[in-house]
Amino acid sequence: MVVTGRALHAPVRGVLEMFDAAFVVDEGGTIVEIGRAEAAAGQVLMPGMVDLHVHAPQFPQMGQALDVPLWQWLQEKTFPLEARYADPAFAAEVYARLVDCLLDNGTTTAVYFATIHLAATQALAEICLKAGQRALVGRVAQDDAGQCPDWYRDASAEVAEAETRALIAHVRGMAGNEAGLVRPVITPRFIPACTDDLLARLGRLALESGCHVQTHCSESDWEHGYVRDRCAMSDTAALAGFGLLGRHTVLAHGVFVSEADAGVIRAAGSGIAHCPLSNAYFADAVFPLRRMLDAGVNVGLGTDVAGGASPSVLESARHAVTASRQLESGVDARVEAGARGCAGARVSAAEAFWLATAGGGEVLDLPVGVFRVGYQFDAIRVAGGGAASNLRLEAEDGAQDVLQKVIYTAGRQDICDVWVAGRRVGGTGS
Amino acid sequence: MVVTGRALHAPVRGVLEMFDAAFVVDEGGTIVEIGRAEAAAGQVLMPGMVDLHVHAPQFPQMGQALDVPLWQWLQEKTFPLEARYADPAFAAEVYARLVDCLLDNGTTTAVYFATIHLAATQALAEICLKAGQRALVGRVAQDDAGQCPDWYRDASAEVAEAETRALIAHVRGMAGNEAGLVRPVITPRFIPACTDDLLARLGRLALESGCHVQTHCSESDWEHGYVRDRCAMSDTAALAGFGLLGRHTVLAHGVFVSEADAGVIRAAGSGIAHCPLSNAYFADAVFPLRRMLDAGVNVGLGTDVAGGASPSVLESARHAVTASRQLESGVDARVEAGARGCAGARVSAAEAFWLATAGGGEVLDLPVGVFRVGYQFDAIRVAGGGAASNLRLEAEDGAQDVLQKVIYTAGRQDICDVWVAGRRVGGTGS
Repeated sequence: MVVTGRALHAPVRGVLEMFDAAFVVDEGGTIVEIGRAEAAAGQVLMPGMVDLHVHAPQFPQMGQALDVPLWQWLQEKTFPLEARYADPAFAAEVYARLVDCLLDNGTTTAVYFATIHLAATQALAEICLKAGQRALVGRVAQDDAGQCPDWYRDASAEVAEAETRALIAHVRGMAGNEAGLVRPVITPRFIPACTDDLLARLGRLALESGCHVQTHCSESDWEHGYVRDRCAMSDTAALAGFGLLGRHTVLAHGVFVSEADAGVIRAAGSGIAHCPLSNAYFADAVFPLRRMLDAGVNVGLGTDVAGGASPSVLESARHAVTASRQLESGVDARVEAGARGCAGARVSAAEAFWLATAGGGEVLDLPVGVFRVGYQFDAIRVAGGGAASNLRLEAEDGAQDVLQKVIYTAGRQDICDVWVAGRRVGGTGS
Repeated sequence: MVVTGRALHAPVRGVLEMFDAAFVVDEGGTIVEIGRAEAAAGQVLMPGMVDLHVHAPQFPQMGQALDVPLWQWLQEKTFPLEARYADPAFAAEVYARLVDCLLDNGTTTAVYFATIHLAATQALAEICLKAGQRALVGRVAQDDAGQCPDWYRDASAEVAEAETRALIAHVRGMAGNEAGLVRPVITPRFIPACTDDLLARLGRLALESGCHVQTHCSESDWEHGYVRDRCAMSDTAALAGFGLLGRHTVLAHGVFVSEADAGVIRAAGSGIAHCPLSNAYFADAVFPLRRMLDAGVNVGLGTDVAGGASPSVLESARHAVTASRQLESGVDARVEAGARGCAGARVSAAEAFWLATAGGGEVLDLPVGVFRVGYQFDAIRVAGGGAASNLRLEAEDGAQDVLQKVIYTAGRQDICDVWVAGRRVGGTGS
């Protein structure tokens, strides 16, 4: 297969390359050659986006109940909704809509928290495979009776481990998944919801299975403080102690990680899913993105659907920029300028785009997010000027112009093609 | 004319009303009766949105050059672009696209800064009238040789005043504008760009003409400090001294207004155009929205195209909520929770919606933004479930559910009808 067009990517953080390309893609979806070709005006091919943090079952409450604190949001809104996925028919209907929605928003790789229900989680993996989305799918493990209601809790650490093993076997064995388009991910919800026994079991399973791991880490004052009180150490240190920090671990949020934590995360090769929109509602502060990047930590972006009310990684990138600007300037106008913010905290639109693509690929250790021979052809075609478009690309626009216009003004209506592993799987088609 | 549907509005700040309505609208666009009717599922009628602050000539640079400070952005990017509107053909092409874009994004009333060019500004007023957008159109006045380049500056205070008078006469005299759909607005750019002589002339003209007035006020550290140095008082106090604060004055930004300033603004009956997205890039802090509302100041929303990179007041409303949350929580995770932010600063989605509609109408003293007999029928129909939609409305959704989903997840692709004064003037039509 050959796809041609003006291509724009960020092979290195902060660096943009734009070129007129002909991508030759083999049957396995791998880019085998990048030639040159005439490109149509007003369109651009970009790497597909990587969403490192999606709560699949929360999709029905997207855009709702963002006015309550995290703990209350979990107990009163989110756990009751997640408990409904005991019904596989409900799960199949919601998950099919979600996967289509994310693909059409340009998310070619998604990392999913599902629920504690094995059947529903298997269904999510099957739906991703059928729809052609690259995905990591996790059955949520949470067995702590003090933090989880009895109607939405693993019966025991043994059961949680056994069902996690069952999910791994199921996903790896799905017909048509020989290339590993869909992968299992070990998913302790977060330390507050899990017993030490469960966390240690899942740490051992991560080592044994080689699977990816995902959990939440230092998200909010409450969550960060809870772990410090219970474990007498930071979230990061505690997770490391349970064997849950490895090269294939994704930590959601990390708003309150310290410089010492950053050293631990970097040494482990783990990554952070930065979810700026969700953080504005549930995290009590802004993730210190610049400090973590400077510390050498792998970082990508997450929507955190539905703590984040947008399914678009483009919108996450936009919020990553604005949140970093508000961290840099500070927010309280009554404070003198010099004391108001954190100097140097800003990231550029080009850096946010790198986080949304190549950065996410690096966190996951998958060959996606960059247009490079040997990488997978996961891509989107963005075109301005459509019926409901606010995007307008001009023939003379340089790489920075195109990138900034897309990050700041494009939406789902502008994404006309979406490919994963060389297969067209979404887009408006216009 | 009769329009039926499920209607949702915020007649009072923080209060939502949802009801199945039949709006009877007379030939002048006034709602003369609100009856009851069956409503179609999955759709909602809302008041059209009011954008209190748009720089029309900056539309071509929307989404670009957001990484430089305000002063540099003006001198190196914005003034050179604005100078191009000496060419009426260029102006006509851009302004027609802009007005269509804003209408399709649901903006039924827009308050425009144009440029110093009389012909181009007259063209903008004519385009608004023809397209059917309720608009206030201002010819920018800026004559200070120290702050404005000689290639983009009024020749003198006399010329600026004379051309402002000419614009007022032209707009008021346009054929088809007898009802005042389009109005002139006296527009000193901001104190740094204007001599005292010009500011005083325009203050007298405001009193004499009864026109609306718009300018920038206390936007950033630099701008706020400049005025304090030059005038030995705050922006607000200086504007009041020049006679520029009245019941029909719109002050853009106001990020650094003090409690004393708030008292002056309230006493004058003036209003503030809160532009949260632009503020993240150019204001150095977050507008103290809650404090200003509590002080009784009239506030509405502005996109500040193109200091703000989105033409959508829906997106402004979304950013008003997130900015208020970041002001409340604070941003620097290294600071203790109690000292990090400004307690009580948050606004809800429902309050942001009020700002986008009724609040904007109150600032302008126009009968729009609420569904009420005697008010103009300026409205939008929002429907989820379209081809590129992330919005999904359910039959059982209550007013809060619908409102939050629309504010957080809807976009231009979901706005299928737009009416101004009872005339259908935009929307996807789907």
